[in-house]
Amino acid sequence: MSEWRLRYEGFDPEDEGLREALCTLGNGYFATRGAGPEARAGEIHYPGTYLAGGYNRLESEIEGRVIENEDLVNLPNWLLLNFRHADGDWFNLSDVEILAYNQELDVRQGLLYRTVRCRDQKGRETKVATQRLVHMADPHFGAEKLTLTAVNWSGPVEFISGLEGRVENAGVERYRRLNGRHLEPLATEPVDQETVYLEVQTRQSKLHVSQAARTRFHEDGQLLGMLPKVVEEPGYIAQQFIMNVKEGREITVEKVMALYTSRDHAISECGLAARQAVARAGGFTNLVQSHILAWEQLWRRFEVEFYAKGGAPSGMKDEENGEYTTMVLHLYLFHILQTTSLHTLDLDVGVPARGWHGEAYRGHIFWDEIFVFPILNFRIHEISRSLLRYRYRRLSAARVNARKAGFLGALFPWQSGSDGREESQKIHLNPKSKRWIPDDTHLQYHVNSAIAYNIYQYFQVTDDLEFLAFFGAEMLLEVSRFWGSMAQYNSDLKRYEILGVVGPDEYHTRYPEADKPGLKNNAYTNLMAVWTLTCTLELLDLLPEDRSRELFENLDLGQAELERWHDISKKMFLPFHEDGIISQFQGYEELEEFDWDGYRQKYGDIQRLDRLLEAEDDTPNRYKVSKQADVLMLFYLFSPEQLEQLFVQLGYSFDEKTIFKNVSYYLDRTSNGSTLSRVVSSWVLARSDRSASWKLFTEALHSDITDIQGGTTKEGIHLGAMAGVADLMQRAYTGLETRGQVLYFNPALPEEMSKLLLHIRYRFHSLAVEITPQKLKIETLESPAGPIQISVKGKVFKLKMGETKEIDLS
Amino acid sequence: MSEWRLRYEGFDPEDEGLREALCTLGNGYFATRGAGPEARAGEIHYPGTYLAGGYNRLESEIEGRVIENEDLVNLPNWLLLNFRHADGDWFNLSDVEILAYNQELDVRQGLLYRTVRCRDQKGRETKVATQRLVHMADPHFGAEKLTLTAVNWSGPVEFISGLEGRVENAGVERYRRLNGRHLEPLATEPVDQETVYLEVQTRQSKLHVSQAARTRFHEDGQLLGMLPKVVEEPGYIAQQFIMNVKEGREITVEKVMALYTSRDHAISECGLAARQAVARAGGFTNLVQSHILAWEQLWRRFEVEFYAKGGAPSGMKDEENGEYTTMVLHLYLFHILQTTSLHTLDLDVGVPARGWHGEAYRGHIFWDEIFVFPILNFRIHEISRSLLRYRYRRLSAARVNARKAGFLGALFPWQSGSDGREESQKIHLNPKSKRWIPDDTHLQYHVNSAIAYNIYQYFQVTDDLEFLAFFGAEMLLEVSRFWGSMAQYNSDLKRYEILGVVGPDEYHTRYPEADKPGLKNNAYTNLMAVWTLTCTLELLDLLPEDRSRELFENLDLGQAELERWHDISKKMFLPFHEDGIISQFQGYEELEEFDWDGYRQKYGDIQRLDRLLEAEDDTPNRYKVSKQADVLMLFYLFSPEQLEQLFVQLGYSFDEKTIFKNVSYYLDRTSNGSTLSRVVSSWVLARSDRSASWKLFTEALHSDITDIQGGTTKEGIHLGAMAGVADLMQRAYTGLETRGQVLYFNPALPEEMSKLLLHIRYRFHSLAVEITPQKLKIETLESPAGPIQISVKGKVFKLKMGETKEIDLS
Repeated sequence: MSEWRLRYEGFDPEDEGLREALCTLGNGYFATRGAGPEARAGEIHYPGTYLAGGYNRLESEIEGRVIENEDLVNLPNWLLLNFRHADGDWFNLSDVEILAYNQELDVRQGLLYRTVRCRDQKGRETKVATQRLVHMADPHFGAEKLTLTAVNWSGPVEFISGLEGRVENAGVERYRRLNGRHLEPLATEPVDQETVYLEVQTRQSKLHVSQAARTRFHEDGQLLGMLPKVVEEPGYIAQQFIMNVKEGREITVEKVMALYTSRDHAISECGLAARQAVARAGGFTNLVQSHILAWEQLWRRFEVEFYAKGGAPSGMKDEENGEYTTMVLHLYLFHILQTTSLHTLDLDVGVPARGWHGEAYRGHIFWDEIFVFPILNFRIHEISRSLLRYRYRRLSAARVNARKAGFLGALFPWQSGSDGREESQKIHLNPKSKRWIPDDTHLQYHVNSAIAYNIYQYFQVTDDLEFLAFFGAEMLLEVSRFWGSMAQYNSDLKRYEILGVVGPDEYHTRYPEADKPGLKNNAYTNLMAVWTLTCTLELLDLLPEDRSRELFENLDLGQAELERWHDISKKMFLPFHEDGIISQFQGYEELEEFDWDGYRQKYGDIQRLDRLLEAEDDTPNRYKVSKQADVLMLFYLFSPEQLEQLFVQLGYSFDEKTIFKNVSYYLDRTSNGSTLSRVVSSWVLARSDRSASWKLFTEALHSDITDIQGGTTKEGIHLGAMAGVADLMQRAYTGLETRGQVLYFNPALPEEMSKLLLHIRYRFHSLAVEITPQKLKIETLESPAGPIQISVKGKVFKLKMGETKEIDLS
Repeated sequence: MSEWRLRYEGFDPEDEGLREALCTLGNGYFATRGAGPEARAGEIHYPGTYLAGGYNRLESEIEGRVIENEDLVNLPNWLLLNFRHADGDWFNLSDVEILAYNQELDVRQGLLYRTVRCRDQKGRETKVATQRLVHMADPHFGAEKLTLTAVNWSGPVEFISGLEGRVENAGVERYRRLNGRHLEPLATEPVDQETVYLEVQTRQSKLHVSQAARTRFHEDGQLLGMLPKVVEEPGYIAQQFIMNVKEGREITVEKVMALYTSRDHAISECGLAARQAVARAGGFTNLVQSHILAWEQLWRRFEVEFYAKGGAPSGMKDEENGEYTTMVLHLYLFHILQTTSLHTLDLDVGVPARGWHGEAYRGHIFWDEIFVFPILNFRIHEISRSLLRYRYRRLSAARVNARKAGFLGALFPWQSGSDGREESQKIHLNPKSKRWIPDDTHLQYHVNSAIAYNIYQYFQVTDDLEFLAFFGAEMLLEVSRFWGSMAQYNSDLKRYEILGVVGPDEYHTRYPEADKPGLKNNAYTNLMAVWTLTCTLELLDLLPEDRSRELFENLDLGQAELERWHDISKKMFLPFHEDGIISQFQGYEELEEFDWDGYRQKYGDIQRLDRLLEAEDDTPNRYKVSKQADVLMLFYLFSPEQLEQLFVQLGYSFDEKTIFKNVSYYLDRTSNGSTLSRVVSSWVLARSDRSASWKLFTEALHSDITDIQGGTTKEGIHLGAMAGVADLMQRAYTGLETRGQVLYFNPALPEEMSKLLLHIRYRFHSLAVEITPQKLKIETLESPAGPIQISVKGKVFKLKMGETKEIDLS
């Protein structure tokens, strides 16, 4: 095993979905699944910025128009590259005897390899090796090289290479009742003897998509002049080439594809751009070189190295250096880099919950970015800024959304569609009971505070006052205004309350006997609202005078409103159990305890307790159970110092020991039905119970690689969980924190870990950080930036460019 | 006269073209010309990012495809709003007797007013008043209010309101032989009784354009429920409404139009977006309010106030406060703000030479931005950065362009089309001789250095190291590489030379007897190349270590190449006359002196000497004449200190007095055939001959308002000249300069000027600067930025936020 290679040997069709999801190639501009050389395999996705229709309807009506869901569109398949014997069918793995199968994803270089040796029914042995990339330097290119070796035969072979636009979105089984056809054919054209051209448009959103593909054949390093036969149908074009293959000889086929859409900048028309690009493109080897260099540079910024025992799934050996764990971490960082890549800067895309790789959730944007930002902020904060601007562009839509909900300010939707409209489902299917049940998850207004939190974190790491003044502040003000209008003063309690919401734990959406959804005073929601209001009021002082004047004018903001925010930020109600545990929401304490052991015995895996209970005509609303961390999110997002400050501000007492009590209380009542939950659980234990934390870390680490939820990974990776795992390394175990003008470290490596190396960027300094149980070493690269302040275990010092410091931790 | 209103009284059809150009409304997203209420008047432009075809061909072939010029497209006319008596034709100014006519452009509020009182052939007197805006807060909206008063009649009137997509680009007479039809109809649809919808697409670039227009009628403040008749044709839709109008009553018609294109971010589909927007839009009054507020905020940043004598055209009174001059300056700033507006940030557009208002040069991007950046840099540098990123996105195209010219690195084109391809004409029409003559202006490679200069200036004002590292440095390196590959070592001279170029002066494109175009050692080009190389080498030291490593890898840049640049930057050849005057190019001294007096007597206006001479079978190439400042550009772009540094670096002696000798030498030989030339001339005289400078300033000030070139303004304003005039105020007369870490002032107000007030932004400080002949007062607004260093007349001091300083100048 290598730290950089995900390797599969032997072919099991059962595993194909998971394998394809993990081996997806992408570059933020498009993604490509499917490893096979078979014609019509493979998919290509474009980051969805298209309108989403209803989740559970075939079509939906919006403003009088019938709309299809086009938030994530499966684009024409460029991987159509295959061969057949003159007397046979197109090559297909299921028709041959597989003698050897090896598939490798090299995440350091962003290359996918597959080698198959097989024997057909006529005894012909063939070796087929492919190498594939989705280009990381020029986002418009994909390329594949196929090498065919006739092991024991000679004879005529026909190759086919083309572009298949008659594809569907069909990656998620339960969506197949929905319309998956999003492409209309516009044009096909043979450009020259090497090149074909296809243009389609999406049905509803009218995005034009152009592809040009160039195919070249080599034998013994010599370019072969081939005369293709062209097959054209609406939405489909391919070239077919016939040649005589001789025993023992290798034929290589290189296919280079250029993809442009009508949303691209700096083009005239996407068809012309695609044709020009492919005509000017170098050969496969050139493309590989520039692609690898781009990846090398990304890894220089993103690599997290560590040495630890354990982490591998049981039964798998993991050496002291944590090779397996490192490989998985690399794989997860690889997917983050493929999804939220530099190429998204101009594209107006957000952080999709399941990558652009998978079709689950149909490309909608949730709150998952709160788990992804910490990785990006500390490395390429230009991407963070671009993602925040994605939200900013949808601020008007969020205002409309708030108005619809009956409040002022802005309410970013729980599931955000292309134009920023709420796309949460109203009902969803329980595959267990086959029943459609009401879905009230859109009441997760806490996503609003998550966006505020992300803006603030971005600002802390970058000190980017310009972004804050120009874009960030307006969002913070509008989110604060939302909370200000939603919070109601309860004169009995003499405190403000927030009613009618759902917290991060989706098992609780209403009270057991209630006739309408929504909970009272979800602790997480209330405290995040307080934090948002406090933070917004503080940031106002940071803004340049002329800019705050503009904002006050534009938003018609007055002193009275600010005073109300101030008041709320000091008098928000927080629910507590009698023994001081923070109640997940008001009334949680009265719910029934759940029979965990009984259900575990009955069902085994009870991660999706909601489905099990619903199938029994019961509901998790009745019990003290959570799908995922809810109160615990507070300990994840805030350091004890910050929490104490907020509690004191609210006039509640705070004792650091409460944290452990709460953590243990809620961990005992969590089914971890969300992949994000283990990340949070591991995090909150990082200091109190390192070995439990490490155990949860390794479980979280397995989430996608072993498809821990049993079948969900093939519908798309879990980007938030992938990032969360990396962030556990980055922040939980290092105590990395940015507050005020200081970069804090407070390492607490798990006992299993002997060393951790990070590269981070902080306010224009590039830092290399090495942590062992004994010492922390920090080095800055040359940069014109001024000195920064670092704190290690509470001791603050200055660090200048080009300097190295070692601090004793023992 | 007001400082904020451009007013026309009385209607002269002859002046209509100029009037429309100056009264164009725009917001960076679209622009609208034509003041009239006549159906089918008015135009709407979209910032052109589309592919340009040949300048002088109907169509051109690019990569095997026939291409139309779609760099600037005239979009459907939303101003179709008119009326007629039941027995008559649609209202038209030429059919009635005009009793009173008043047109006013209020540039403070961005509102265009027109009032017409007229009598028709049947003696019916009618008053028609319109008020119009192109919205500055929400770029998608245009709105018009028409008030009709039946002065002395009653009777049925039919109104028409619609969207006309069967428009052409026909604004420039000499282009009318070219294809001006760029729109194909896609859809028309009556949405409801108030609203119609039109969708078209551009023919070649396939941009979808959607408009929805809502028309409402009011009488006595009451909304009237009207039943429209809908008229639809391909590319056209209108509603017609009939009502009885009573004598003395006012009918108001409010039309609100929403425009979206398929390139917009944060939408699903442009048609849906346009319909939603117009359905959600407030009434005309609401739109006016938010529009005015947006303008008020812009003026807070951009206003330049001054008090001066003179400046008005002869015969026009101008009081001590320079009301006329201030009005023109406001008008010019207004057009700058309407063209390079905040709404372009997401649009990928550059600085068009003639605004988006006019069709001359067909939307191509020249070097004019070098005159516009100083105004933007000091106010909203987010726009500057966006404009520089426009160039960055075309860096690949510039590389292709350099390769075509036979050089390394990047060569940005002289006339840049949508995808960054060279679009300079190969031949052009001399309207004087009616002959098509070869055009070699694409050899103005100096545009490359202008882009480098703009990047550096942006960095100086903003200290935006992130932009520099991420985008700017790569452009600088590639431009340097271009000069490095173009400069040849001449072993006789023991110096490097640049051969085969054209300088800014387009009168000189080749030697009189030469059979191919291009000049040797244009002084401006050579020195700018030296400056670029020097600046690039210096900036490399500023970059963070990890970023420069990436750049070196990506560009395959080595030490040898840097050493060559260094060598060139010390050994570039500069041509001089025997008496020490800098030769415009090698051999200029040998050209014939021109008979200025003779030609002035013969022709009167000799601004376009090239056309006069060509019509006589002669050529300006033979004479010491320039169309515009060439050598003088050096004194415009660099302070004497900077020039001295460059000369010394090259081993040439430099005496500040040389400047005056050169200025006077070349001013005597300049026809000022470019609107930019007077700006530069006024600038270079600002310190040596203040009254001559002031005279040239006032001439430059008149360039568009009086259409100084006789007919060119109606084809589009001269954005560079407009900005240049404002920049004379901003920098020439204040000595404002940014170098290193210091903001320099060195005021030299013309004697006519008693006071000058500026608002500028410098490294996150907002500064108010007031200059009189006696003192300079500088005030910073509250801001979290650290102190900045200011130098006034050579004395450096620190200024903290919220501080005010007064410095005695007398």
